[in-house]
Amino acid sequence: MPSTAPPPFNAQKLEVLAFDIFGTVVDWHGSIVREMLQWYPQVDGDAFALAWRAGYAPAMARVMAGELPWTLIDDLHRQILDTLLPDFGLAHLSEAERAQLNRVWHRLAAWPDVVAGLTRLKRNYLLCTLSNGNLNLLTRLSKQAALPWDCILSAETFHAYKPDPRTYGGAARVFDVSPEAVMLVATHHDDLAAARSCGLRTAYIERPLEFGAQHPKIETAVAANDLHAPNLLALAERLGC
Amino acid sequence: MPSTAPPPFNAQKLEVLAFDIFGTVVDWHGSIVREMLQWYPQVDGDAFALAWRAGYAPAMARVMAGELPWTLIDDLHRQILDTLLPDFGLAHLSEAERAQLNRVWHRLAAWPDVVAGLTRLKRNYLLCTLSNGNLNLLTRLSKQAALPWDCILSAETFHAYKPDPRTYGGAARVFDVSPEAVMLVATHHDDLAAARSCGLRTAYIERPLEFGAQHPKIETAVAANDLHAPNLLALAERLGC
Repeated sequence: MPSTAPPPFNAQKLEVLAFDIFGTVVDWHGSIVREMLQWYPQVDGDAFALAWRAGYAPAMARVMAGELPWTLIDDLHRQILDTLLPDFGLAHLSEAERAQLNRVWHRLAAWPDVVAGLTRLKRNYLLCTLSNGNLNLLTRLSKQAALPWDCILSAETFHAYKPDPRTYGGAARVFDVSPEAVMLVATHHDDLAAARSCGLRTAYIERPLEFGAQHPKIETAVAANDLHAPNLLALAERLGC
Repeated sequence: MPSTAPPPFNAQKLEVLAFDIFGTVVDWHGSIVREMLQWYPQVDGDAFALAWRAGYAPAMARVMAGELPWTLIDDLHRQILDTLLPDFGLAHLSEAERAQLNRVWHRLAAWPDVVAGLTRLKRNYLLCTLSNGNLNLLTRLSKQAALPWDCILSAETFHAYKPDPRTYGGAARVFDVSPEAVMLVATHHDDLAAARSCGLRTAYIERPLEFGAQHPKIETAVAANDLHAPNLLALAERLGC
């Protein structure tokens, strides 16, 4: 084995791979930029996509703090959208146009390695989503992108948003396995750290273009993760699939 | 069109097909009989399967009446199993043997038309389960039988067992559609009647051998159902898939 090979990963007892979705599996930035270019070419799609996404974590935090009642991501996305439209010269959009634009989150494109990678991983592992997206969003997104999940788990399943421990622990409980039999796969170190604190194993996937080519993400490996892979095909390789 | 052709079905606005599982999609009786024959050939597998299944509705009724706390089907199946084993001369089974036998519900075989039928229906409709089975049972069952669901919905999703209206109405709400955009597909008239009272459309599937060849089910068409089909391939045909 050449000295540059990664250390072997002990996949013993690993049974479930739980995937973060936005950024990890689908390219939300690129998909929104493309759709804005098609329908509203006068708008700076890059700035628009970043502003929309930036409203997401604060909105979930308000729900988890009890300032808002339990609210699905489709509805949080819509609330953020309504506040953004005037800033981008789109205050005139009709209700139907706003609803149609909000459903862009149901039409996000998967990164190019995803379908082939999941197909390989599915041979040996139970694959589920573990996303803050609601069930409707995740189901329609997965159907249009042909993502071969064994099960769709959502914050909606647990009535709690990541990084709440009920989500990570909930995934293990749903499948009646110990937390170390579940590996969270994500491109966000905070999500992975929270999963690790619940006893899950973790794999970081590099998505340097998550925020667009103008804002490359620094893909530093964190030693605490069990695995660090450039994409899902490499993850399949590391897991022997 | 020959005069014996069924009346055309108006599939307009139909978007989601929600499937009952036990009996409709998988052959619980035949699967349990085969497994008993393999491991415990001294037992009357037909009687054993029927007795196990017969405990299911009363157990769920006790949960819904508040006599038992919320309990997953895997656990209800196990409670019923433990009471049955002495009657069938299997009181000596160890904890590991009981757990293994209880998981037969995760290994049920699909009826022969199911994978091909679902594959055709999936082209035009969003396919989900709507079963009293828990998420773990439904996920593992579907994985081993290669059932191509878009989403797995369970009584566990809604914390209510069919025929509670929260399950049927919940399926429509999860996918943000009106109840008439959802069709329940089942081989049980009581399940279909409850779905209809919540505004869902209904399709009856004939499974005359659900209770085994010794106990054929009378497959009488009920006019209130939108469709009545001998299997899922015929359903796909009727729905133009």
